Amino acid sequence: MGKDDVKLLSMWASPFCMRVKVALAEKDIPYEEILETDLMNDKSDLLVKSNPVHKQVPVLLHDGKPVAESTNIITYLDEAWPAKPLLPDCAYEKSRARFWADYIDRKVYPAGRAIWSSKEQDEVEAAKSNFLEIMMYLDGTLGDKDYFNGDTFGFVDILLIGLTSWFPAYEKYGDFKLEDHYPKLAAWITRSWARETVSESLTNPEKITNFVSMMRKMYGLE
Amino acid sequence: MGKDDVKLLSMWASPFCMRVKVALAEKDIPYEEILETDLMNDKSDLLVKSNPVHKQVPVLLHDGKPVAESTNIITYLDEAWPAKPLLPDCAYEKSRARFWADYIDRKVYPAGRAIWSSKEQDEVEAAKSNFLEIMMYLDGTLGDKDYFNGDTFGFVDILLIGLTSWFPAYEKYGDFKLEDHYPKLAAWITRSWARETVSESLTNPEKITNFVSMMRKMYGLE
Repeated sequence: MGKDDVKLLSMWASPFCMRVKVALAEKDIPYEEILETDLMNDKSDLLVKSNPVHKQVPVLLHDGKPVAESTNIITYLDEAWPAKPLLPDCAYEKSRARFWADYIDRKVYPAGRAIWSSKEQDEVEAAKSNFLEIMMYLDGTLGDKDYFNGDTFGFVDILLIGLTSWFPAYEKYGDFKLEDHYPKLAAWITRSWARETVSESLTNPEKITNFVSMMRKMYGLE
Repeated sequence: MGKDDVKLLSMWASPFCMRVKVALAEKDIPYEEILETDLMNDKSDLLVKSNPVHKQVPVLLHDGKPVAESTNIITYLDEAWPAKPLLPDCAYEKSRARFWADYIDRKVYPAGRAIWSSKEQDEVEAAKSNFLEIMMYLDGTLGDKDYFNGDTFGFVDILLIGLTSWFPAYEKYGDFKLEDHYPKLAAWITRSWARETVSESLTNPEKITNFVSMMRKMYGLE
């Protein structure tokens, strides 16, 4: 393993970078994190060269070869480092995991963003309802299991937990508590954050909430 | 192979269903197509039961077990029927294929829809520019190769070709010809349509253009 040269182009507040860091930690892959300092005004040449289409973090560099897009990176990690698999073994269970991965990728972050970036109260309420409806489906598929795929923390858990540093900001600006609506899902967050691979990879939610507050001021929302 | 019971819940105009049909044909998997007749007003009970989250076609039923979302279905087909692989063998090339799959999935269909569903001329022009910019990246990654992964028609080809029945409608309402901008990409479309697995799976573009015209009338656009 020591022979692999692994670098992660990252940004401290990006939930998509955080999930890749959790995956790297779960798979015990040593890596160097290279932080972008100003994505808005001054993207690094390395980032633009490594991800010329989207010019976004995260990008994984494996022996210099770039892999972009967080879910794609995590799938790649699972294929290139087969030990400690994140995806289930059987094709059907894999398809279930990918279905929920896609659901999370398309829905959770934009729905959360709509909560804190809305101006009018009715827009905030609509955004909150939408976010909670998305959570309802995730709570439903989690059910009484410890983790999304059963007993072990895996692919879907990583994709969702990476986004949860932002949840307290959604709760603050939407004026709700996830645990009042979905106690099982809230318990899953607590259970997952108790893992070192998670708590050491994710940015402190308080820091994210301050960051969101700063952006709201910038957008003239507070 | 004959032992597998494979059904596809489908709709004749859906480009996402068409791509799954191409994949089934490429992999020589016999299946029964079950057509939805009125997705707008009367979804079948089987569809709602099989895909309760999105309630959308396509859904594959393999021995009764549902797999939803076209890209997920095609990945599943490639894993459950390993003969005639669609995805490249090596992890890095797989990650490249998934990167472009994701790009196509997120961008092409909504960009095309914006062309024919826009009312004002400046909106149509903006939608056309956006569509052509997306095509520029796809043309760039295709380059001088016959197919996206090189010599053989595979995963990325299937995902994109499935959407091309709609392209003549985009060209008509956007008043452009793809081949004037990207002759290599246009040649790839012609080359791919020459395959029986494609031409027998995709709906005739003329039928799609008539369908689009009908929707435009319904939306008060013509």
